[in-house]
Amino acid sequence: MTDRIQEFLRARRLEGRDNGPCLVVDLDVVRDNYRAFAKALPDTRVFYAVKANPAPQVLSLLAKLGSCFDTASVPEIEMSLAAGASSDRISFGNTIKKERDIQRAFELGVRLFAVDCEAEVEKIARAAPGAKVFCRILCDGEGAEWPLSRKFGCAPEMAAGVLEHAHRLGLVAYGVSFHVGSQQRNPRMWDGALKSAAAIFRELSERGIQLQMVNLGGGFPTKYLNDVPAVKTYGAAIFSALSKHFGNRIPETIIEPGRGMVGNAGLIEAEVVLISKKSQDDSVRWVYLDIGKFNGLAETTDEMIRYPIRTRADGDATGPCVIAGPSCDSIDVLYEKAPYHLPISLEIGSKVLIEGTGAYTTTYSSICFNGFAPLESFVI
Amino acid sequence: MTDRIQEFLRARRLEGRDNGPCLVVDLDVVRDNYRAFAKALPDTRVFYAVKANPAPQVLSLLAKLGSCFDTASVPEIEMSLAAGASSDRISFGNTIKKERDIQRAFELGVRLFAVDCEAEVEKIARAAPGAKVFCRILCDGEGAEWPLSRKFGCAPEMAAGVLEHAHRLGLVAYGVSFHVGSQQRNPRMWDGALKSAAAIFRELSERGIQLQMVNLGGGFPTKYLNDVPAVKTYGAAIFSALSKHFGNRIPETIIEPGRGMVGNAGLIEAEVVLISKKSQDDSVRWVYLDIGKFNGLAETTDEMIRYPIRTRADGDATGPCVIAGPSCDSIDVLYEKAPYHLPISLEIGSKVLIEGTGAYTTTYSSICFNGFAPLESFVI
Repeated sequence: MTDRIQEFLRARRLEGRDNGPCLVVDLDVVRDNYRAFAKALPDTRVFYAVKANPAPQVLSLLAKLGSCFDTASVPEIEMSLAAGASSDRISFGNTIKKERDIQRAFELGVRLFAVDCEAEVEKIARAAPGAKVFCRILCDGEGAEWPLSRKFGCAPEMAAGVLEHAHRLGLVAYGVSFHVGSQQRNPRMWDGALKSAAAIFRELSERGIQLQMVNLGGGFPTKYLNDVPAVKTYGAAIFSALSKHFGNRIPETIIEPGRGMVGNAGLIEAEVVLISKKSQDDSVRWVYLDIGKFNGLAETTDEMIRYPIRTRADGDATGPCVIAGPSCDSIDVLYEKAPYHLPISLEIGSKVLIEGTGAYTTTYSSICFNGFAPLESFVI
Repeated sequence: MTDRIQEFLRARRLEGRDNGPCLVVDLDVVRDNYRAFAKALPDTRVFYAVKANPAPQVLSLLAKLGSCFDTASVPEIEMSLAAGASSDRISFGNTIKKERDIQRAFELGVRLFAVDCEAEVEKIARAAPGAKVFCRILCDGEGAEWPLSRKFGCAPEMAAGVLEHAHRLGLVAYGVSFHVGSQQRNPRMWDGALKSAAAIFRELSERGIQLQMVNLGGGFPTKYLNDVPAVKTYGAAIFSALSKHFGNRIPETIIEPGRGMVGNAGLIEAEVVLISKKSQDDSVRWVYLDIGKFNGLAETTDEMIRYPIRTRADGDATGPCVIAGPSCDSIDVLYEKAPYHLPISLEIGSKVLIEGTGAYTTTYSSICFNGFAPLESFVI
């Protein structure tokens, strides 16, 4: 909670506009985060993961600060261009792309594409001739709070073949990427992936192809309920792993922070709609908010991300609660497996503040599920 | 797949408008479904669960056919009124309501409200004086493919107290509701809940309060991969359970079908974006579609709803696939725990048809996650 956000919420309340949940993002925090990344990894280019929060003001600020952009789709490329990024600062980082979208990206000037199989390489060779490609490899997501599935990347032993295929089809076999898992709290997790990446560099080199870049992915955490290491700790661990595996031939590197760039810049104000018990002797209260899985808090799926929730009654005695959203959907329950402790004095109609909600909240909202509007968002 | 949908999709393709996934809903099927419910339960009023698919054309058709509407929010009440329903045909069926939303609903003429605790009764007594309330009770969701959590309803032994509280506060203690779980494939599951409801009727009667209505909820299934019993089978089982527990004093009843009303009326056409393997010797292919959890298929969460997927290569030899969506989100995987079998001859760029997608698809879409547009929808 920054002073600026506090001031904004106070004004909104005074004007009687606090009728539904809203997210407020403080650009000063985004600026600080960008500078922390730039300082922690001075030789690494920052590609902001647009999907984390594509608010135009966030993109414009980052474009001005010199950030590059990791995009998932043509609309995200267009948003990045509109924010002032030149096309050489944009990566089409989704490994799953329609050929006509690759073509459109190429027309817009994008020359850097992610792949993880030969079929995707062939699409790019046809639709974006001569472009640079990097191959994403699978890596262990241990230690991450939002661990990645096997959806993206191929086995490391397959990557050399994919990149050689790209080279043969006239593309620039440019490098290797991986992702150690979102909200990765262990800075040493980059080590194993960099070892695999270095092996791919060596194997391609033996085949006469010189890779140039390692995309270190995202995974940089934001503070939720638990403290997380500082960005500079990640920078040091990554630099140490790079030196260990690449010696004095350290390649060009890029990072793709999303959550780490905007997560702690945002705060959601919500309202307690109902507090009840399921039976007279129930020891657990149900606390229903006006925000749930479908209008902003999708990352509570499987209770993976556990947001700090602040109330005006903090400091009073607490009791266990199940926290749920306002919709008529039974899966719209935020925390039940591990009940959340909230003040016993909390009342229906009270406001609550949900911290660390700058990433993966706004665009995740459903368009109108149960008639509820998507999460309102303000960037200040 | 109806002839009308087939014709619509053919025309869309010829016009070159088939650039992204789309849902097509055939109103003739909705009409047939409404009539089947009306026939199977002739003495029961149908309250269509608007959240399942709030397309204006669907609501208008159902309003014309005589349906009532179960709503989850003020916007859904407004949509129902706009479709031609009078306010006495609208129930505010969400047990979690802001007091100002109850007041707004009351101003719009709504007089029927769901509750499951005393605090909600008190809100209604203040904001909607004299209205009718029914108390939702918890019931076992066994046999349902989308079983309901404990989010809605109170223990049956608490309901009499809640309804008596309503009576004392000047409301009409009107009845009891329950929900046997969505996509409930066992028609006998209404029996236990009706036994609890009848006991609450008796207990209130002993306290001098005559309840009048049982809301039998939804749960009526639509056909996905497995056959489901016909609506008339449900009607017979429910009538039999009503007679068993209420004798010759059968109360007024209502049902709230959503999925059962529109599920099989809709079909999504999507496109194969990529087919790949994670390693050379992988026996499972990954098939990536241009639709996933975030732009229409949210009900594949935990692989609960397993949609039939048709391809032009059906009949060819099949092999196991993981099916995933197009976004850069690792949880956007539709079927992995139990791999799906698709034709080995399926190719990148092919269209696939996802059946039974008329319910819980459009409004579940995220507004712009990863830059992807919400699911396009056509009602014909």
